Amino acid sequence: MFHTEVRVIYADTDAMGVVYHTNYIKWFEIGRTELMHEIGFPGSVLEKIPLLMPIAHVYCEYKKPAFYDDIVEIKTHVSEIGYVSMIVACEVTRKATGELLASGYTKHGFTDDKLKPIRAKKAAPEFYGILQEASMDKW
Amino acid sequence: MFHTEVRVIYADTDAMGVVYHTNYIKWFEIGRTELMHEIGFPGSVLEKIPLLMPIAHVYCEYKKPAFYDDIVEIKTHVSEIGYVSMIVACEVTRKATGELLASGYTKHGFTDDKLKPIRAKKAAPEFYGILQEASMDKW
Amino acid sequence: MFHTEVRVIYADTDAMGVVYHTNYIKWFEIGRTELMHEIGFPGSVLEKIPLLMPIAHVYCEYKKPAFYDDIVEIKTHVSEIGYVSMIVACEVTRKATGELLASGYTKHGFTDDKLKPIRAKKAAPEFYGILQEASMDKW
Amino acid sequence: MFHTEVRVIYADTDAMGVVYHTNYIKWFEIGRTELMHEIGFPGSVLEKIPLLMPIAHVYCEYKKPAFYDDIVEIKTHVSEIGYVSMIVACEVTRKATGELLASGYTKHGFTDDKLKPIRAKKAAPEFYGILQEASMDKW
Repeated sequence: MFHTEVRVIYADTDAMGVVYHTNYIKWFEIGRTELMHEIGFPGSVLEKIPLLMPIAHVYCEYKKPAFYDDIVEIKTHVSEIGYVSMIVACEVTRKATGELLASGYTKHGFTDDKLKPIRAKKAAPEFYGILQEASMDKW
Repeated sequence: MFHTEVRVIYADTDAMGVVYHTNYIKWFEIGRTELMHEIGFPGSVLEKIPLLMPIAHVYCEYKKPAFYDDIVEIKTHVSEIGYVSMIVACEVTRKATGELLASGYTKHGFTDDKLKPIRAKKAAPEFYGILQEASMDKW
Repeated sequence: MFHTEVRVIYADTDAMGVVYHTNYIKWFEIGRTELMHEIGFPGSVLEKIPLLMPIAHVYCEYKKPAFYDDIVEIKTHVSEIGYVSMIVACEVTRKATGELLASGYTKHGFTDDKLKPIRAKKAAPEFYGILQEASMDKW
Repeated sequence: MFHTEVRVIYADTDAMGVVYHTNYIKWFEIGRTELMHEIGFPGSVLEKIPLLMPIAHVYCEYKKPAFYDDIVEIKTHVSEIGYVSMIVACEVTRKATGELLASGYTKHGFTDDKLKPIRAKKAAPEFYGILQEASMDKW
């Protein structure tokens, strides 16, 4: 599990006075990106293999709104890893109170730079091993 | 069912050369917004009741990428309507080929302008009636 | 001069209750994109030459706010054309009232697909001729 | 002068393979937001006065592209302060190389929560004093 945090700016909010719903899903990308750095395989390194991880589907559930100037914590976790895909789970909480604001996941395919499916285990065995190990930690 | 269309600009795309995944979910909002106008209850009118429809959860499945300068068609459909929530389904296709690019839905709560849950049937009976009727059309 | 229009959605707004300032600059891109289609040289055709037009600088002045559910009109105009760059001017008005909301411009370099400067007159003479002619119309 | 940094994610980039131009202007907002925290007057505190600082105009000049997974440094500086407006200057550099990527500024009006102009010196004298002092530091 990996933690990172972001401060809410006006760009993230909408005229309902709260964070616009797709911006939580951008925060999921921030969480994943930092997780990939943490495990030693940043996206910029994976691109050179080439191994891309485009999104196959996304789900997000909204519990409470985040507001302008809040700091939100993004917890990210590889929850499943398969030959051609993986699932990354995310939780967003308000740092000041610990309240859960949103949770969800993204399912990613493993592809080459033409977005053709490939086996991550073959294309990047060390990376795949680390993901497998990471997916065993539960929150 | 309601159709609208949008041309993909650079702002919508990312460095993988395709439309960034959260932008399909913004297109869902464009589809809903035009649907609400079509049925005579635009968001700006609902806000005055006040009736807001914040998002409770969102799901989106990505089939094929949209590219820069494509025209995409957004089909929007009220698929379920309940006392305190509704589900709006969306499909995004490439206009030139008819290919399905993404599909998904948003679940919305009905709330007042403090984001407190309310019954749409009571707060806006005419609107609720139209939504109920609309939810009977299937695609 | 070319006209196009866009309806403001929640995604465009912020917690001040108005359209977030960078979104006007995205509308400039919508205006330019439609202008390029109008003159017969859409971005997707120019990319194949290859001729890209990355932004060298941008200026935008905000007069009055646009609100959720407004329709805004985007007027776009090639105001200057040189060997290696051009300037595209934009005005955004509220359709319902005609009020000027924002105006500004983008300066673009002409480059190949590696973002190296090139002469548009040489790379795409027909396109360059049309731009030159277009830049003579004033608003 | 205040420093903060951000890592580029796919959401920030476009199909030219570089960061989309308006996202630098969002980074300007990140820089300003952190600067306001640094001087003890975060936006969420100013909103309660109420003192808002909507943008009157923005200028940004692009020198070199930022790429996916780069860390960019945002340097922010109050460059001018007047009775009813201020100018905040920004520079964005690539952390790994120190290269200047973009520079620009935003001019802000001081307003109440109805976006009516007010004098910051009167509405928030302590804040105004700090801004005045800050504007004397040059980079």
